[in-house]
Amino acid sequence: MGAMYALAEIADRLGGELHGPGEIRVGGLGPYDAAEAGQLAVAFDAKALARVEAGEAAAVVVPVGLDSELPHVTVEDPKAALHVLLSLFEPPPLPYAGVHAKAEVHPSARLGTDCTVGPFAVVEEGAVLGDRCRIGPHSVVGAGARLGDDVLLHAHVTLYAGVRLGSRVVIHSGSAIGGNGYGITMRDGRLRRIPQIGSVVLEDDVEIGCNCCVDRSTLGFTRLGPGTKLDNLVQVAHNCRLGENCILAAQTGIAGSSTVGDNVVMGGQVGVADHVRIGNGVQMGAQSGTTRDLPAGAEVTGTLAMPVKTFMQVQLLLPRLRELFRRVDKLEGA
Amino acid sequence: MGAMYALAEIADRLGGELHGPGEIRVGGLGPYDAAEAGQLAVAFDAKALARVEAGEAAAVVVPVGLDSELPHVTVEDPKAALHVLLSLFEPPPLPYAGVHAKAEVHPSARLGTDCTVGPFAVVEEGAVLGDRCRIGPHSVVGAGARLGDDVLLHAHVTLYAGVRLGSRVVIHSGSAIGGNGYGITMRDGRLRRIPQIGSVVLEDDVEIGCNCCVDRSTLGFTRLGPGTKLDNLVQVAHNCRLGENCILAAQTGIAGSSTVGDNVVMGGQVGVADHVRIGNGVQMGAQSGTTRDLPAGAEVTGTLAMPVKTFMQVQLLLPRLRELFRRVDKLEGA
Amino acid sequence: MGAMYALAEIADRLGGELHGPGEIRVGGLGPYDAAEAGQLAVAFDAKALARVEAGEAAAVVVPVGLDSELPHVTVEDPKAALHVLLSLFEPPPLPYAGVHAKAEVHPSARLGTDCTVGPFAVVEEGAVLGDRCRIGPHSVVGAGARLGDDVLLHAHVTLYAGVRLGSRVVIHSGSAIGGNGYGITMRDGRLRRIPQIGSVVLEDDVEIGCNCCVDRSTLGFTRLGPGTKLDNLVQVAHNCRLGENCILAAQTGIAGSSTVGDNVVMGGQVGVADHVRIGNGVQMGAQSGTTRDLPAGAEVTGTLAMPVKTFMQVQLLLPRLRELFRRVDKLEGA
Repeated sequence: MGAMYALAEIADRLGGELHGPGEIRVGGLGPYDAAEAGQLAVAFDAKALARVEAGEAAAVVVPVGLDSELPHVTVEDPKAALHVLLSLFEPPPLPYAGVHAKAEVHPSARLGTDCTVGPFAVVEEGAVLGDRCRIGPHSVVGAGARLGDDVLLHAHVTLYAGVRLGSRVVIHSGSAIGGNGYGITMRDGRLRRIPQIGSVVLEDDVEIGCNCCVDRSTLGFTRLGPGTKLDNLVQVAHNCRLGENCILAAQTGIAGSSTVGDNVVMGGQVGVADHVRIGNGVQMGAQSGTTRDLPAGAEVTGTLAMPVKTFMQVQLLLPRLRELFRRVDKLEGA
Repeated sequence: MGAMYALAEIADRLGGELHGPGEIRVGGLGPYDAAEAGQLAVAFDAKALARVEAGEAAAVVVPVGLDSELPHVTVEDPKAALHVLLSLFEPPPLPYAGVHAKAEVHPSARLGTDCTVGPFAVVEEGAVLGDRCRIGPHSVVGAGARLGDDVLLHAHVTLYAGVRLGSRVVIHSGSAIGGNGYGITMRDGRLRRIPQIGSVVLEDDVEIGCNCCVDRSTLGFTRLGPGTKLDNLVQVAHNCRLGENCILAAQTGIAGSSTVGDNVVMGGQVGVADHVRIGNGVQMGAQSGTTRDLPAGAEVTGTLAMPVKTFMQVQLLLPRLRELFRRVDKLEGA
Repeated sequence: MGAMYALAEIADRLGGELHGPGEIRVGGLGPYDAAEAGQLAVAFDAKALARVEAGEAAAVVVPVGLDSELPHVTVEDPKAALHVLLSLFEPPPLPYAGVHAKAEVHPSARLGTDCTVGPFAVVEEGAVLGDRCRIGPHSVVGAGARLGDDVLLHAHVTLYAGVRLGSRVVIHSGSAIGGNGYGITMRDGRLRRIPQIGSVVLEDDVEIGCNCCVDRSTLGFTRLGPGTKLDNLVQVAHNCRLGENCILAAQTGIAGSSTVGDNVVMGGQVGVADHVRIGNGVQMGAQSGTTRDLPAGAEVTGTLAMPVKTFMQVQLLLPRLRELFRRVDKLEGA
């Protein structure tokens, strides 16, 4: 997995200094404590370097001032170098090119230049794809969906009819965009779903993890602003609007018609009730939840965990908290 | 997206009064504040009407007593009119008819009249489908599964072998019905799954959102009663029984062998432990959880969220709550 | 569904004593209170036996000392007998054999002996499968993935490129193994994902439920130890390492770079923050969460649920807990 580079080219790309044979080739980037044979590693300090040298790495990147018996490249900022190397060694996301013979693309669909459609992928009628879109195996681009340029759908993504994606949107395996919102009414003694006939807009640079759900709106669009990133298993309900550059960690859920500002950060398993307004820059800790609006810049949290025995006591005593306040009131009055 | 109607027909369907040219045609229904050109909108009041008039809607539905320069229809109850219009403009869920050439239907499977099977869908051996069932792209109807009439599976649904669905059941993309229940035992120093050889019954009018899991039972059936609706990412474990007309919001989970009555409402991210009995009409607030039975009609909740600083204090002080009660006891005794 | 056996063979397999005609055949195993015609049932006591006899079962297994008018088998330990019977009657997980004509297997992929690849499954370039692997419909084995022997992927599983599975690994429908970890950085005013170029190792006998996510590491491998079992909708983030024989119930999530020891048990909806160390044998109750390390053997919990009215009071009073402690301090000082 991953490309091979001569060490001299690595030094060049990092703006670093080469020590040792420039022509040796490294294939892949490994962790400092478990690099495999032929891989390159990055050591942030002497301790990490010792681990690299004890292992099988073919070469190592070190901060200026460290020396190694291994072929190595010295750099000013090894953390920045690591980021460059991660991009350099990132494998292509899909091993396909062009429209696969076993894909199913409706004749009325329009594909831009250099699009990739994997085996068993489906592009339904009237869908429009920009340039260089990559559609993974089994992914479904629903009827009338509109995609910008450089969109990447991994395997098993479902875009319901009419979904609109900006450019550079990335969606991971198993996510469903545009499912029916959960609007329910009782009629003739049985619950009935209220039809949701809107759709979803994911703006430029939105990224969606695995097995997420973003529901379509009743009317108009459920909307995620540019650059917003969802981790895995995140739920965004119908009629929600999220601003730009939001971070929603795994298993977080936003209920219907809530509004989230820009640059909001939610930890894992956060819950936001319906019709709530979350201001810009709000930070919500893991497992917290809110049924009320949160003003811009607010920081809340809510994770409780304590030893079982203590928790059992607390759980018994908490409902008596009002009684305790009253008893203290009385004592003070006495 | 969506059908086109003459405004006169809209007035007729709504039992409303037409003001303006009846022959103009509207294509789609838009939100009052963002209707697109050619769409119809509904304004509940004068303020909403002003928004509609400032936009691009071709026509508008208003309550009796409001007047508009736009072609419009007046109705007694605009909310009811909106529901009628949502159904009227709802697009067909799947753009296919008949059995697609790229579907894989086992020769022994039996399909009722007017069934639709999308591209790359699989109907395994011995499966039986009622009339007018619609199976979306990539959905799998497992061996021996039995479906009533008018069942709708969106894309990427998995029905494991032997699953039984009533009529009008709807399942959204990515849901897996009949996965192996999570029964585990230790044998020879390693955890082993206990085989779960039962299956799942979803009765008439059950609807399941995206990426849900309903596990099969050890023996017999895990069962969801008529009209019960699951939102997205909901977990129902093996051997559970849910009554009719239950509402389970997103990311809620019910652990194994628990029983839920009729008309139960659970908010998002609710947890119910295993072997628990939840009575009829119980309401559980978002993020609440119970390890104990809840009697019919009970209402519980459990979402905590407060400013980080306050929460940190509370988290430190809570374990000392028993101590505080004792100190107050002593003061009172003094 | 399920095989048929003569009652004499059942008695033989259970090491029990046959009472009645040994040649009658039973097809399937039913619950004692709802066995269908022709099925076998197990009754643990006289009360359960009465239920079986009132139903349609063809035969019954009872503890030594109980007698029945039905053809029956007596055993010393009916619970152990039930486990044997569950394995005996477990249907085959996939109704396919060999490589299906509608599968897509890259010419460079290597399959061991007796592998099964279902319709519309994809095995990408350079993937290596051991013997007797079974790949369900629509599952994707990514480029360069390596599978041991007897691996079972149900329908709609996604293995990203480079994933490594041990022997006897089982993965249920909709799970995505090797999705991009959620590492994010801000660059040019927009959030960007940091490439994650490692992969995932699931060791021998790991089992993964439906719609789970295990993300690949930044470098090296996210790793689940032998025998570890995930229920449904579980999230394991990038760079995590889980030990052996861990049990993670549904909707639990482990954030990035956390380490979990051996024999750890987490209830449903548990959250573990990033960079946390959970010791061997830790038990975390449902809905609990931790942002701190937990030592070996620790037991924590955190589920709060109380009547709505009580909860509302508690929620108002909790932030005043520090004030209350101070007032009591003062009273004691007085």
